[in-house]
Amino acid sequence: MIFTKEEYLRRVRKTKEMMDHLGMEMLLVMDPANMNYLTGYDGWSFYVHQGVIVFLNRENPIWFGREQDSNGARLTSWLPDDCICGYPDKYVQSRYTHTMRWVAGLLRENQADNRRFGLEMDGYWFNAKMYITLKEELPHAQLMDGTNLVNWVRVVKSPAEIEYMRQASRICEKVMQTAIDEIDVGVWEKDVAANVCAAQIAGTEAFGGSSPAIFPIMPSAERTSTAHLTFEPDRQYQKNDAVLLELCGARYRYHAPLSRTVYLGDPPEDLCQTADGVVKGLQETLSFVRPGVTAEAVEARWREAIAHTGVVKPSRVGYSYGLNYVPDWGEHTISLRPGDKTILSPGMTLHFMPGIWLDAYGFECSEPILVTDKGCEKFIEFPQQLFVK
Amino acid sequence: MIFTKEEYLRRVRKTKEMMDHLGMEMLLVMDPANMNYLTGYDGWSFYVHQGVIVFLNRENPIWFGREQDSNGARLTSWLPDDCICGYPDKYVQSRYTHTMRWVAGLLRENQADNRRFGLEMDGYWFNAKMYITLKEELPHAQLMDGTNLVNWVRVVKSPAEIEYMRQASRICEKVMQTAIDEIDVGVWEKDVAANVCAAQIAGTEAFGGSSPAIFPIMPSAERTSTAHLTFEPDRQYQKNDAVLLELCGARYRYHAPLSRTVYLGDPPEDLCQTADGVVKGLQETLSFVRPGVTAEAVEARWREAIAHTGVVKPSRVGYSYGLNYVPDWGEHTISLRPGDKTILSPGMTLHFMPGIWLDAYGFECSEPILVTDKGCEKFIEFPQQLFVK
Repeated sequence: MIFTKEEYLRRVRKTKEMMDHLGMEMLLVMDPANMNYLTGYDGWSFYVHQGVIVFLNRENPIWFGREQDSNGARLTSWLPDDCICGYPDKYVQSRYTHTMRWVAGLLRENQADNRRFGLEMDGYWFNAKMYITLKEELPHAQLMDGTNLVNWVRVVKSPAEIEYMRQASRICEKVMQTAIDEIDVGVWEKDVAANVCAAQIAGTEAFGGSSPAIFPIMPSAERTSTAHLTFEPDRQYQKNDAVLLELCGARYRYHAPLSRTVYLGDPPEDLCQTADGVVKGLQETLSFVRPGVTAEAVEARWREAIAHTGVVKPSRVGYSYGLNYVPDWGEHTISLRPGDKTILSPGMTLHFMPGIWLDAYGFECSEPILVTDKGCEKFIEFPQQLFVK
Repeated sequence: MIFTKEEYLRRVRKTKEMMDHLGMEMLLVMDPANMNYLTGYDGWSFYVHQGVIVFLNRENPIWFGREQDSNGARLTSWLPDDCICGYPDKYVQSRYTHTMRWVAGLLRENQADNRRFGLEMDGYWFNAKMYITLKEELPHAQLMDGTNLVNWVRVVKSPAEIEYMRQASRICEKVMQTAIDEIDVGVWEKDVAANVCAAQIAGTEAFGGSSPAIFPIMPSAERTSTAHLTFEPDRQYQKNDAVLLELCGARYRYHAPLSRTVYLGDPPEDLCQTADGVVKGLQETLSFVRPGVTAEAVEARWREAIAHTGVVKPSRVGYSYGLNYVPDWGEHTISLRPGDKTILSPGMTLHFMPGIWLDAYGFECSEPILVTDKGCEKFIEFPQQLFVK
């Protein structure tokens, strides 16, 4: 157990308070990060249907999953044995039946098939067929939208969580340094990516890392003109390549993301100007972040700071992050963009991420930050610049 | 482009034939492996909503995704520019609006809002809220279940796909050898895992790997008594540890999975017996696999082969695999288990995976295989044994 039982119980209680506030009696939590957050459960079993059901009127949640994974729940969660329910293998990825029929049976056995029942409607893990099947199986339940309910409980981190995020940050520094040290003309992209992946897991002398929720994003050359492309397996870096690095460290699934940009050769003037404008805008914006300001105000401050540079950034400039599994280290709560009214509070953790993708190439320089009592603090001290080699 | 345009067009045509057969006029494909299969699109952007829409009455599918990813579609897919549609960033992970409202608008613009419209209802990527929103926005459409439709088109692999799966197999051999060579008493689990991750990406002298759809599963000691736990970041291997290795190589997202088991010390008698029974059962079963037999007959043959050993395996013993992204290299089509009536054909690729999890530890020894004209062929030649060190 990487947190105290008290911490897990506090998380469950906060979840119940939010459920009660919304008039919800039960919540089906299928997001693996939310399952982990509430129970400690940690396994790569989320490719089959599994979940945690939180009941307002029961002390402990119930974990359910594939029978062969239930020992994993016994080993990694704080839940007592009678709260761990495995289902038979015939429900796994079947075209003949559906796991939600089994879940509905479980609820009927527990006289819980007629409740106001929250579902993570807009997450990755609660799909349309699950909804349709539950609706059919539970005609007396009132199905409600519980999207991101636990994600919002997660948004303010505890001191213990922040400590793991600091450890992840130490790993991330090593990961980024590995990439910057190794990228060079003639080096295979795959070899740098391999060493980056190794650094993520090897961690530091003191502790190991965990699998990242986003695989290293490290496009080169024309592939830097867009977001989210990874390395090219059969290409060597060439002179005049720009390389974007969107990397992370992770510790017990808690992340520390960081972006930087490398240029091999003499960088073009407009890339240098973009870099300069972005870095200054980043610094000005971070000095503005403090409790009480809204997410959209932070974005507006950024936009103001770069207005004179001609750089335009139509996508959000940051988001809340922390505990997660694939496919995203973002938390799906706060976005730094126009219209997001979230008021920042101490303990929130944001990835301020001004990525710019121009026609020919891009520039990224980001910072993971912690909102503190008076302002914000960077998790990572890493030079904010275009790395020219 | 890693396949010819003709191959992509053939895949689209097969998809349309299956749609037509089901009385479907349009199909929304949101599974990133299916998107890649039909268009070549390849980016780590699937954490936001994106998809490919296949129309029976249009030659080319439409790709849609976040505006900042649309250059990625231009760079990696064969689609012409006018088939690539980016949506504004305000739709990303928003609690104020929903991407499916934008998609419905796109369909209305194309006079396609009143069709028989297939949806990947039971996949990871089409969630309940998407369904509810489309239902509301498209009152004249007839929403249909298109779960795994493209997955079933994928089930028989082309020669070009099989070639990439062979390359992935070469990577996988190196990955497995790295793990077996490095696991030893006193070695940190994280350091072995780091080298395994690096081997997956570094690939061979001739070509690089790609990110695996399942992170290396390599539990030790009591954690081998269950499925799907990964390494422990702060633990050193100890004498009398069993270590399960469920690893893979991947090439252009095509996988080669393989499982083996290591024991550090003198293995207990019952583990040796289990290993012996499983390996013999595996060999007998593989010699039975051929075109024309059903998936459930393969499982029955396995059960018969191990009946005398006392080993019981209540979960499926294999599944179809190939092209994939996180969280699963399995294809969600064929499962080797009672009740699965799929008739095997040449070109199908299966991971025969008899994992046994006993009370104190487990044993795994698996083989990725290709169904051939007359029988089956192992993709990988790797000793089938308990590795004792």
